[in-house]
Amino acid sequence: MNTSELIYFDNNATTPLDERVLESMLPYFKNDFGNSSSSHHFGKRINNAVQKAREQISSLLNAEPKEIIFTSGATESINLGLKGCAIAYQSKGKHIITCKTEHKAVLDTCKYLEQIGFEVTYISVKNDGIIDIEEFKNALRKDTIIVSIMWVNNETGVIQPIEDIIELTHENDSIFFTDATQAVGKIPIDVYELDIDLLSFSAHKFYGPKGIGGLFIKRGIKVDTQLHGGGHEYGLRSGTSNVPAIIGIGKACEIALEEMKVNSEYVKYLQNELEDRLLQIKGTYSNGNKSNRIYNTLNICFPSFDANFFIDKYKNIAVSNGSACTAALVQPSHVLIEMGLSEEQALGSLRLSLSKKNTIEEVNELINIITTYLKR
Amino acid sequence: MNTSELIYFDNNATTPLDERVLESMLPYFKNDFGNSSSSHHFGKRINNAVQKAREQISSLLNAEPKEIIFTSGATESINLGLKGCAIAYQSKGKHIITCKTEHKAVLDTCKYLEQIGFEVTYISVKNDGIIDIEEFKNALRKDTIIVSIMWVNNETGVIQPIEDIIELTHENDSIFFTDATQAVGKIPIDVYELDIDLLSFSAHKFYGPKGIGGLFIKRGIKVDTQLHGGGHEYGLRSGTSNVPAIIGIGKACEIALEEMKVNSEYVKYLQNELEDRLLQIKGTYSNGNKSNRIYNTLNICFPSFDANFFIDKYKNIAVSNGSACTAALVQPSHVLIEMGLSEEQALGSLRLSLSKKNTIEEVNELINIITTYLKR
Ligand SMILES: Cc1ncc(COP(=O)(O)O)c(C=O)c1O
Ligand SMILES: Cc1ncc(COP(=O)(O)O)c(C=O)c1O
Repeated sequence: MNTSELIYFDNNATTPLDERVLESMLPYFKNDFGNSSSSHHFGKRINNAVQKAREQISSLLNAEPKEIIFTSGATESINLGLKGCAIAYQSKGKHIITCKTEHKAVLDTCKYLEQIGFEVTYISVKNDGIIDIEEFKNALRKDTIIVSIMWVNNETGVIQPIEDIIELTHENDSIFFTDATQAVGKIPIDVYELDIDLLSFSAHKFYGPKGIGGLFIKRGIKVDTQLHGGGHEYGLRSGTSNVPAIIGIGKACEIALEEMKVNSEYVKYLQNELEDRLLQIKGTYSNGNKSNRIYNTLNICFPSFDANFFIDKYKNIAVSNGSACTAALVQPSHVLIEMGLSEEQALGSLRLSLSKKNTIEEVNELINIITTYLKR
Repeated sequence: MNTSELIYFDNNATTPLDERVLESMLPYFKNDFGNSSSSHHFGKRINNAVQKAREQISSLLNAEPKEIIFTSGATESINLGLKGCAIAYQSKGKHIITCKTEHKAVLDTCKYLEQIGFEVTYISVKNDGIIDIEEFKNALRKDTIIVSIMWVNNETGVIQPIEDIIELTHENDSIFFTDATQAVGKIPIDVYELDIDLLSFSAHKFYGPKGIGGLFIKRGIKVDTQLHGGGHEYGLRSGTSNVPAIIGIGKACEIALEEMKVNSEYVKYLQNELEDRLLQIKGTYSNGNKSNRIYNTLNICFPSFDANFFIDKYKNIAVSNGSACTAALVQPSHVLIEMGLSEEQALGSLRLSLSKKNTIEEVNELINIITTYLKR
């Protein structure tokens, strides 16, 4: 297979790296290879570059540089944020609230917290994927220490009403964590204005490198260290800093801030084309609330369709039937099941996630392939 | 500062990246950017490359590919190995043995384990940096579940007698963990023959990229997951795989296996030159056991010398006064203090760590600079 012929609509699994991001990283793989914790001048110079990247990230989020902790990715950020905060505030209470359609990184971390004595309430979503706000309100308790609700769903693109959730959470004197892995770099985020306490993200979801992510921790919010060692990242996350990747995520944030508007308009246009024309196929419909959905994600259910068979048949197409995890078994998406789809409907749905690198030609080709396939 | 003029003798903090390693990574930053967990053909192809890297690592260590878990680096591997194993075997006992001169990643993880109810015995070293074997023997108990002794010390290069320690550990029916961060890629390692249970490493210590490392877990040894999520790395370490870095560590292992003999002979020659001539300076001596020391690390104490002042004065020299951690305060190395040095002696010692990229010209220049400085 030649990757240049690849039709790639799996950008929520990972995006291609922006060439400018790679360019920014290369010097740190070559001459500037030093350890940012070394006390010699070379080390200090590298550390300055790391601090600049921290500023680029905090500008994108409207945070303070010191509120950003580098991690190896969103999964680690989620583990650090949820476990670290739960442990730090356990004397206040042991109850946590999250949502049934969260990413496995949140759900599995919550399962672990249940094992070590915390109690977790998993809130349902409506058929359109939006959290059931009434159920959420009723779940809030005096001993609720953390509310963890994702910003944008990775499978459907549904945007949760986090403003309302934050307000209710803070009224209840609880801490608000949001897994913003599918939001950062794509939509405007102002942690200060929204008064977010903790927020996780991964660079490889917005044209940055893999192996790097971050956790925003509002000043004053306590988080217990999860990776012990040399005391890097203000003592919260030890381990030699991944300098080239840090430079890369910084650059990715800078580019995102500058180009968000034009990219989102372009990708939205592709998404509209793709959706409008696929929905002309009889019996086909979109999963998830259309008016609260990010501009790059479609989740479409096709009639009498086996998504896995389709994915396996077309070697040059990259689309997904759920999130990119390591399930050896083909299981229907827990997100779609929670939205009320039958197993068959869930297994008949495709996630099509777009990026600024997609073209209208690819959109046309994908539509042709799917249409032809369905007519078989 | 121009890095081309940099005299770099801080390779135990981090090594330059081998050009061939960077070459091997570049395609995975470009066309082959996919997510190795995606079920489409593109994802599967990326996953095959990841598995090949796992084989390259296991070849270097004489392990099985399935016994290798990718992490973000040695610190994470140590946290996973020690905490994961301690939790998994806590019903058998809650006692752990380690050594006072371990890296902070081990010591801090042990301190954390003490906080959550484990008991840790810290064994002393002799003046030459070698662990006190009698003290170790006496510390072994029925409820000792883990013995964690580093292979090569990062500050002095001292090689611990791990064969003897493994034998005693296994006679006691305890699990043997070794932090081999300064050994992997530099000296021959055969986990099978030595019957090692757990072993940690970081790619950036042997010409590989930062942000990637691994944990060898012998088949049958239980380790509790520390990063929860999508179930990557056989369920032990979730998070989207850092594909380019994984390809890079694989390549670094392949190169290390092929070129270890010639590189070690060359670096040993440089080390000998450097040491012989520095020791001609009156009052100067080497810290650590000379006959059990890795070929790339020197730790030298100079008379009436302030290592930090020296490091700060020479902007084009990269040497170290301990390990590269984030201590804002200048503190004497805990390793040297444990070896019986006074604070003044410890603060008057330099760590000079070499690599295959160093030249005899650099050795000469460093000797000149130090000699001139001491004559000031
Ligand atoms: C919503 C969401 N959260 C968390 C993650 C985990 O990100 P990573 O695999 O980069 O750690 C992902 C991506 O898989 C995601 O889409
Ligand atoms: C002996 C030893 N152990 C552990 C580590 C931690 O490695 P890393 O910072 O790559 O996680 C280092 C390097 O700093 C080391 O030298």
